[in-house]
Amino acid sequence: MELRAYMEDRAAKVDAALEAWLPEAERPPAALHAAMRHLVFPGGKRLRPILACAGAEALGAPSDRAMPMAIAVELVHIYSLVHDDLPCMDDDDERRGRPTVHVVYGEATAVLAGDGLLASAFECLTRAPGYEAEQLLGAVGDLSHAAGSLQLVGGQVDDLSIGERLPGADEVEGIHLRKTAALMTAAVVGGARLGGGGHDDLERLREFGLRLGVAFQIADDLLDRDDDEPCSSVRVLGEDGARARAAELIAEAEARLAPYGAAAEPLRALARFSIGRDR
Amino acid sequence: MELRAYMEDRAAKVDAALEAWLPEAERPPAALHAAMRHLVFPGGKRLRPILACAGAEALGAPSDRAMPMAIAVELVHIYSLVHDDLPCMDDDDERRGRPTVHVVYGEATAVLAGDGLLASAFECLTRAPGYEAEQLLGAVGDLSHAAGSLQLVGGQVDDLSIGERLPGADEVEGIHLRKTAALMTAAVVGGARLGGGGHDDLERLREFGLRLGVAFQIADDLLDRDDDEPCSSVRVLGEDGARARAAELIAEAEARLAPYGAAAEPLRALARFSIGRDR
Repeated sequence: MELRAYMEDRAAKVDAALEAWLPEAERPPAALHAAMRHLVFPGGKRLRPILACAGAEALGAPSDRAMPMAIAVELVHIYSLVHDDLPCMDDDDERRGRPTVHVVYGEATAVLAGDGLLASAFECLTRAPGYEAEQLLGAVGDLSHAAGSLQLVGGQVDDLSIGERLPGADEVEGIHLRKTAALMTAAVVGGARLGGGGHDDLERLREFGLRLGVAFQIADDLLDRDDDEPCSSVRVLGEDGARARAAELIAEAEARLAPYGAAAEPLRALARFSIGRDR
Repeated sequence: MELRAYMEDRAAKVDAALEAWLPEAERPPAALHAAMRHLVFPGGKRLRPILACAGAEALGAPSDRAMPMAIAVELVHIYSLVHDDLPCMDDDDERRGRPTVHVVYGEATAVLAGDGLLASAFECLTRAPGYEAEQLLGAVGDLSHAAGSLQLVGGQVDDLSIGERLPGADEVEGIHLRKTAALMTAAVVGGARLGGGGHDDLERLREFGLRLGVAFQIADDLLDRDDDEPCSSVRVLGEDGARARAAELIAEAEARLAPYGAAAEPLRALARFSIGRDR
């Protein structure tokens, strides 16, 4: 399959859905809504929402079926970036070549914009028409757990707590599981759930997503090669070790897709992309 | 009815349910979980969760039926306090006679503890057994809307934006509606929803909750009489005007409870309490 065309098509649909869902930048309080949109438009590759689409497609559903989860997971991702960039956290002034939210709108509004994005993620799942309440509630459960203190937020705390110390390889992978893989997993699983997946499907795709997420983060560490980054797979495994671990995880991930045949081709291509991508 | 005994009984149930739901303070990352619990235990009066209980009771359901909403709404309330206290917002070092979360655990952990509490609020609604998915999804919808950029978070942005200027009475009431009344309304409505309330019940209780919430905030302004507080009803209405407006709102609120007879006695007593209380 032509992955680039696939990703562009799905990203365009995600952009349109996000545009339709989020309050306009002019809607009062305008500073808040503009700040919420600042990092959403223009977006990045929309990898997490595309994973949600591909999750639904693996179950034989059209990608649009995953759209409420696609939007929700992107909003959670963006909220986490807005808060991670804050002066009291990573203190980043720039992201994707643009000033970060707190630089443009101030720190208080950046905290509140992140909060607003997080609430908005859950609300959008409750407003989607044409689904069983059970499906949407399950998606809220997937996403709130992934965003919470045992996953995304907890991983960020542990990442910040490493400080100058050299962590072990297990510790680094544990942080990557929670900080990166949990949300990607929620995307695939939630998309599959809205696409009609049953219990066994969701379990398989959970195993797929966790491995893809960790491999993605290892690839990110290989690209970054930032010696200042304490929680880096390259730092604890070496370059060859990191590359081998990522390849192993992706092979394991792909094995979980066997029951889905050609319908899982987008997930397979995304798994390979997650370790072969460039900036 | 004996309101004090009622509130103590319901608050004890809410405390027990919060204790059972939140990860233990020792659970890794321990700093995060301890920070999340810091303002939850010991709590305040638990007014919002008690409103959820009373909402279910008005529909003839036992108060326990509202417990998932009671917990969720308290977690959202506490998250908002943790973020409001941050140095970049209200910069408060103390709350209820104890140091605030960022003073004890640092600013980064305080931001993340708030984030974790917000995610936890939604997760707890998805984990409650014995409800129809429709009811719980509706409660997630009530709560996420109340917490979002058009309500709680937006009200906080507008509150911060007043600065030194003297706002109009409508502007102050609009901020109180979003910053205070929306979450109280979600509590009553969500509790009633889990107690089996239908569309008309939820609409009536929404009208009740909005009025109770604004009256509560006016009473708070009357108690506070902080001349430094720009967004104060007393400042824009005067003391007598504020008192009259609160009484008018509570009379209007009580009128909505007529269909529920004795079952709404707790809501009636809470409405009167909200304007008659002392610290």
